[in-house]
Amino acid sequence: MAQVNAILTDAPKGGVRYGKIDIRDEEGANAKLEPVYTGICGTDRGIVSGSLQFAYNPQGYSSLVLGHESVCKVIDIGENPYHIRPGDYVVPVVRRPGDCVNCLAGRQDNCSDGNKHEAGITGMHGFMREYFYDHSDYLVKVKDPSILDVAVLTEPTKNVMKAFEVFSVVSKRAIFHNRHSTLTDKRAFVIGTGSEAFLYALMCREYGFETVILNRHPIDERKLSLADAAGIEFHDYSKDFDQVTQGGIDLLIDTSGHPETIFRFMRKMNYNGVLILFGTNGKAPGAPLDGSDIDYIVERNITIAGSVDAAQVHYYQALEYIRKWRYVYGKAFASMITGVYSPEETDIFSRKPAEEIKSVIKW
Amino acid sequence: MAQVNAILTDAPKGGVRYGKIDIRDEEGANAKLEPVYTGICGTDRGIVSGSLQFAYNPQGYSSLVLGHESVCKVIDIGENPYHIRPGDYVVPVVRRPGDCVNCLAGRQDNCSDGNKHEAGITGMHGFMREYFYDHSDYLVKVKDPSILDVAVLTEPTKNVMKAFEVFSVVSKRAIFHNRHSTLTDKRAFVIGTGSEAFLYALMCREYGFETVILNRHPIDERKLSLADAAGIEFHDYSKDFDQVTQGGIDLLIDTSGHPETIFRFMRKMNYNGVLILFGTNGKAPGAPLDGSDIDYIVERNITIAGSVDAAQVHYYQALEYIRKWRYVYGKAFASMITGVYSPEETDIFSRKPAEEIKSVIKW
Amino acid sequence: MAQVNAILTDAPKGGVRYGKIDIRDEEGANAKLEPVYTGICGTDRGIVSGSLQFAYNPQGYSSLVLGHESVCKVIDIGENPYHIRPGDYVVPVVRRPGDCVNCLAGRQDNCSDGNKHEAGITGMHGFMREYFYDHSDYLVKVKDPSILDVAVLTEPTKNVMKAFEVFSVVSKRAIFHNRHSTLTDKRAFVIGTGSEAFLYALMCREYGFETVILNRHPIDERKLSLADAAGIEFHDYSKDFDQVTQGGIDLLIDTSGHPETIFRFMRKMNYNGVLILFGTNGKAPGAPLDGSDIDYIVERNITIAGSVDAAQVHYYQALEYIRKWRYVYGKAFASMITGVYSPEETDIFSRKPAEEIKSVIKW
Amino acid sequence: MAQVNAILTDAPKGGVRYGKIDIRDEEGANAKLEPVYTGICGTDRGIVSGSLQFAYNPQGYSSLVLGHESVCKVIDIGENPYHIRPGDYVVPVVRRPGDCVNCLAGRQDNCSDGNKHEAGITGMHGFMREYFYDHSDYLVKVKDPSILDVAVLTEPTKNVMKAFEVFSVVSKRAIFHNRHSTLTDKRAFVIGTGSEAFLYALMCREYGFETVILNRHPIDERKLSLADAAGIEFHDYSKDFDQVTQGGIDLLIDTSGHPETIFRFMRKMNYNGVLILFGTNGKAPGAPLDGSDIDYIVERNITIAGSVDAAQVHYYQALEYIRKWRYVYGKAFASMITGVYSPEETDIFSRKPAEEIKSVIKW
Repeated sequence: MAQVNAILTDAPKGGVRYGKIDIRDEEGANAKLEPVYTGICGTDRGIVSGSLQFAYNPQGYSSLVLGHESVCKVIDIGENPYHIRPGDYVVPVVRRPGDCVNCLAGRQDNCSDGNKHEAGITGMHGFMREYFYDHSDYLVKVKDPSILDVAVLTEPTKNVMKAFEVFSVVSKRAIFHNRHSTLTDKRAFVIGTGSEAFLYALMCREYGFETVILNRHPIDERKLSLADAAGIEFHDYSKDFDQVTQGGIDLLIDTSGHPETIFRFMRKMNYNGVLILFGTNGKAPGAPLDGSDIDYIVERNITIAGSVDAAQVHYYQALEYIRKWRYVYGKAFASMITGVYSPEETDIFSRKPAEEIKSVIKW
Repeated sequence: MAQVNAILTDAPKGGVRYGKIDIRDEEGANAKLEPVYTGICGTDRGIVSGSLQFAYNPQGYSSLVLGHESVCKVIDIGENPYHIRPGDYVVPVVRRPGDCVNCLAGRQDNCSDGNKHEAGITGMHGFMREYFYDHSDYLVKVKDPSILDVAVLTEPTKNVMKAFEVFSVVSKRAIFHNRHSTLTDKRAFVIGTGSEAFLYALMCREYGFETVILNRHPIDERKLSLADAAGIEFHDYSKDFDQVTQGGIDLLIDTSGHPETIFRFMRKMNYNGVLILFGTNGKAPGAPLDGSDIDYIVERNITIAGSVDAAQVHYYQALEYIRKWRYVYGKAFASMITGVYSPEETDIFSRKPAEEIKSVIKW
Repeated sequence: MAQVNAILTDAPKGGVRYGKIDIRDEEGANAKLEPVYTGICGTDRGIVSGSLQFAYNPQGYSSLVLGHESVCKVIDIGENPYHIRPGDYVVPVVRRPGDCVNCLAGRQDNCSDGNKHEAGITGMHGFMREYFYDHSDYLVKVKDPSILDVAVLTEPTKNVMKAFEVFSVVSKRAIFHNRHSTLTDKRAFVIGTGSEAFLYALMCREYGFETVILNRHPIDERKLSLADAAGIEFHDYSKDFDQVTQGGIDLLIDTSGHPETIFRFMRKMNYNGVLILFGTNGKAPGAPLDGSDIDYIVERNITIAGSVDAAQVHYYQALEYIRKWRYVYGKAFASMITGVYSPEETDIFSRKPAEEIKSVIKW
Repeated sequence: MAQVNAILTDAPKGGVRYGKIDIRDEEGANAKLEPVYTGICGTDRGIVSGSLQFAYNPQGYSSLVLGHESVCKVIDIGENPYHIRPGDYVVPVVRRPGDCVNCLAGRQDNCSDGNKHEAGITGMHGFMREYFYDHSDYLVKVKDPSILDVAVLTEPTKNVMKAFEVFSVVSKRAIFHNRHSTLTDKRAFVIGTGSEAFLYALMCREYGFETVILNRHPIDERKLSLADAAGIEFHDYSKDFDQVTQGGIDLLIDTSGHPETIFRFMRKMNYNGVLILFGTNGKAPGAPLDGSDIDYIVERNITIAGSVDAAQVHYYQALEYIRKWRYVYGKAFASMITGVYSPEETDIFSRKPAEEIKSVIKW
C-alpha cells in the first residue's frame, strides 16, 4: 500500500480533483513508471462530467485515477524480453485482457464478452499519478527518444492503426483499388477536426487517398497548417456540402458519433465504400434511415464497421508513424500538442480550449 | 430479328402481359436456349407494379422481357470450354459486366461504377420468353439433371453464396469462432420467412450456426417442416422478442429491408457480430438510430455489410448446395416450389399466394 | 483404473497386439464411448513398423492404444451444449491443445510450439479399445446417422478441409480465378490414389476444378468408378507425363511425400499456382532443386504450403461433405471402405491390401 | 522517330555500350522525362553478361535500352489526375500489363500468363537514355523532393513492399503473432547483404521483428553502420550457424537464389514459419530435399512463397518508407548509394565494386 498524488474522479458519478490516494500493491508488476506527459481526451471529460455510465472505480476503491493516454519514464524494471531498461520511455497499454478467445490471443480490443478492463476508465486505475507499477508485458518502448514531445499521441494513434486494419480486412470483399492498383483517385472523408480526426487523415494520406477533413465551421490557422503540410483538404460542410461530396466518398471515417452527420455523408458513398464508425457521443439525437437508405447500402455493397480501441501491435505501429510524421512534418506535427498543463490545473477537464487539438499534462 | 412470345413489362412504368415481341439478333451469342422453369420474386412484382424506378427497357425497345430466375434447356450451342452440349440444362447469369476493375475480373456483382446490366431488370431482356440466345460464357451447367425440379432456385441461392463470402471476409477482422474453432454456440438470426430467408437459414446451418428464422406472425406447416428437417428454429417475434433474443445474435441477416425491424434486432447483437443487409424495400418507413446506437456498433466492433447479387462462381456453389439439399432433405426441400403456373397466368405477378415460398412458371 | 481390450503398440518401438490394458480414469471426461468403426492409415502402420520416431506412449504407460480415425457410439454423457445424447454417434477430435496462442484459439492443428498431443500417436491413448472416456468438448456429433457406414472417413476428410482453408488463404495473394470468377478452366492435380488422394480430389471438384489424380501405375475398377462418378480423371503418369501436364497445373496437392515426384510436377505449375504438401514419407530419398527451380517459383509467384491435421471446425465440415457425397455418389462413395476387419485381425496393420482405399475395424 | 544517347545492349546476347539509337515515337505517351539517377542491379549485369535468356529486344529493334531502376525529372506532361507537373520528379513503373485478369486489375506483377513487358528487360526499352516519353498512368510522383538522392531506391524497395503484402496474406493461415499480438519475439532472417537484403531487413524492423542479415563472410563498416542504425544484427553464418539459428526462424527471406543456403536455413524454421523466395540465380547448383524435409514443412505448417516484382501501389509505399528512412536514419540510409557513375562508365556493368550496396548512374 502506498500513498500517491493523482488526478481522481469517482466513476461514474464524476468530478475531478488532484489529491492523495492509497493504492494497493499491484500484483505481478515488475516495473515502476513515472508519467512524463498524459493526454486528455473526450472520454476523460465525459467521465469527469458524469456522463459515461460504463465507467467505474476499481474493485475496493471509492475513486478512480484518471488517464489512459500517456508516455512514461521507466524508473525501475525487472529483466524482460523487450529490451526495456531504467531510463527508457514507454507507453503503457490501456486495455487489459479477460479470458475470451480474442483476449487470449492478445486482441482484447476485440474482446468477445466485455470482460476486460481499461486503465483510467473501467475498473482499473489510470496513469495520471506521480508514479505507478505495471508489468513489462504491457509496456511499449519508445525506441527513438527524440520524439518524446509527441509520443503521448501514441494512444489516440493506435486507434487509427486498428481502424485501418479493419479497413484492410473488410475492403477485401471487392477490388477496392483502381485499375492501376492504387488509391490515387479514391476519396477518404474524415468527419471532425479534433486530434483523432487529424491522425486518421494523416493515415489516409499514407494510403494514398485524396483526403478531406470536415467540420461545420471554419478551423484556425494552426490546424490549416498541419492539413497543408500533409496534403489534406479541409471543408466547412455547412457551406459547400454538395460541392465537396461531388465525386462521392470511398472511405468515410467518423469521429463525431453524430448520426445525422454520419448518415448525410453516408448517402454520398461510392460503390464498395467503407464507413468506419469510431466516434461516440451517447447523447447525440436520433436520425432516421429509411428503406431507400438500406437499399443504397445493399445495392452498393457498402460496409459499415464499428472500431474501438486497438491491440498492442497497433501501439508499435502508432509509434513508428508518429516517428515518421515528427521527422517529416516537423513543427506542423508537433503543434498538435496545443496546450501543456500542470496536474493541479484540473479545470482543463471541464473546459475545452477553442483551438485545442490535444491538451496534455506535464508531470 | 425474330418474333417470340414473352412475358413483357414497360419499365419503369410497369404492367405485365404475355405477348409477342420482336427481338434483334443477340451479338456474340453462340447458344439457343429454352426456359424450363422461371421463378418469380419480389423484384419482378416490383417492376410490374411500377415501384422500382431503377428498372429500364433495353436500348431501342419500348418493353422489357421479364425474368432473371431460370433454368433452361440448351437447344443448340457452339463449341465451348464448359462441356455444355445440346440437351444439357443451364442457368444463365443475370448480371452482365461493364468495364470497371471489378467487372473485368468477373465480379460485376461488385461493379465499381454501376455500368452493368441485369437480365429482366435493367436494360437487358430477361429469360421469360419461348427461347432466347446467349453466350456460353454466361451459362452455368446443371451437372446433375436429377435436380431439375429445384434448379430454378439457383438464382436466389447464389445471392446467399455471395453474402456468405462477404461474411467470411469481414468476420476475419476478429476471431469470430469459439475456443474450439467452431460456431456451435454462435447464433444466426434471419429476418423473414420467404425463399431467400430459407436459403440463408439453410446455409447458416451448413456453417454450424444455431439458426433462427423470424417473422411477426406464425408460418404454415410446409414452412415448419422444411425448418424442422434442417434444424432451423422459427420464432414469431411479435410474441417472444425478449426471450428469443436472449443470448444475443452473432450473425444477423435481413431479407426484409425494413429499418425498424433491422435496428430492433441489431441492438441485440453480440461483440464482433456481423449484420448482412440483403433485403430491400425502398418504400419502408424511416427508423431512427441515435448516439447510443452508434456507440453500440463501435464498442462491440460490429460490422454491417450490404450484399447484392453474386458472381458466376456463386452460381456453381449454389448448384452444389441445392444438389446436396435436394438429396438430403428430399421432399421437404423440393416443397420450396409452392406453385407452378403457365406463362399466360400473369396475375401471379400482382398477387402473392399466402403460403408462397417460390412461385415458378413452367414453359 | 479399468481394464479394457485394446489394440496396442509400444511407441516408438512398434509392434501390435490385441490385448488387455489397465487405463487410469480420464480426468475431466464426461462421456463414455464405444467405437463403431476405426480406420487404419499409413500413420498407424508406420507406428506399428517402428518407423515413426515422433510417436510415444502416454506418460506412465509402457504401451499406446492405437487409433485416431473413428466413429463412436455414445453410451453415456453429461449435459453438454452440443445436444449430444446417449445413443448418438460422434467423431472424437484427434489432436488436443497445449497452451500456445493457436491452441488457446482452438487451432491446435496450427500449434506454435509442438506442445500438443494426438490420440493414438503422441502421448495419448487412441480410440481402438472396447470403450473409453472423453470430454464432450472434443466430440463432433454425426447429425445424420444414415451415413454411419462412411462416417469413419471424417478424420481423413477433415485434413482435406483444413488444406482447402490454407489454399483459400494463400491463393488470395493474387487473383486465382479466371475472368468469369470461376475455376472451370483451372487444373488441380492430386499425386496419389489412396483415400486421402480421393478425398482431396472430391473436394477439388466441389471447387469446380478440372481434377486429375495421378499414380505411376494403373488403378483398379473400383477406384475408376468412384473417379468417374465425380468427374475426376485418372492418369498413369509413368506413361503420359508430358501429355497430362500440358496446360499446366494451378493447384497441386501431394499425398505421397515423395520429393522427386513432387518436384517433377511442380515444374509444370502455372503462374500463381499453389502447391499443398500433405503427404509425408520420412524415408523418401532426396531430390535436388537448383537455381532455375527457385527462379521458377519466384518468377511465377508460386506458393508452397505444408498442411497438417485440422481444427474441430473441419470435422464438422468433413461430416457435411461426407453426407453430401454419400447421398449424391451413393455406393461409389461407400465403396471407399474396401475392407472391414475384426480387432483381432491385427495383421492388417502390417500389410496393405492391393486394392485398399480404406480398411476399417468393426467393433 | 528520334535519335538519343542511351546505354544499349543486345538482348539476350549481351554486351553494353553508350551510344546513339533511333527510337520510334511512343504511342500514347503524354510525358517527356529525363532520368536523374538510374540504378544498376544484378539483372542489368546478367543481361550484359548474356546470362539471362528471358531478356529480349523490343519488336523491330536490334538493341535494347537498359535500365529499370530510375528517378526522372518531368520535362513536359499533359493534364493528368496525378497532379504531376513539369519540374516534378517521378519513378516510372517497370512492368507493363498484358490482358490477363491480374494485369487488368493493375496487378501485372501477378500476371497470370506471362504476357507483360518490363522496361529495360523484356521487349521494352529501359530508362537509361537522355530522355524518353511515357504515359502519366505509369509515373509515380516523388512527393517530397528532399529525398531525391535516394529516390532511385524506389524500384528495389517496391519489391520488398510486394513481398510483405504476400507475407501478410499467407501468414494469416494461422495466428503468426505472439499472445500480445506483436512480433517482438519473432525472428526474421534475411539471406544476403546487398541492397535488396538491406531494404528487406529495414522493413522487417518496421514490422517489429528481431532482424538478422546473413552472409558467409564479414561485411564492411558502412554496412554495419546502417544495420546498427536500424537495430539489425549481422551474422557471418560461415562461423556461427548453429548459434545464430538457435531460437529458430519465423520469417525467412532469401535474396541469394542459392538452394543449398536456403534449405540450410529452412530446416531451422519455426512452426507456422514463412519463407519468401525473392533472389534468383539461375546458375546456382542443385541441393536436395528429402522425405524428412517435406515432413518438416508439413508438420510445421510452413509456407514458401515466391515473390517477383510489385504493383504500382507498392511504388507509392516504397517512396513513403524511403522518405521515412531518409529522415530517420539520415546519412546511414543515404550511404546505401555506394557509387555514382557517368553514363559513359559502362564498365560498371561488368564489375561489382567490393563494398557496393547500390551503384547508380547520374544523368
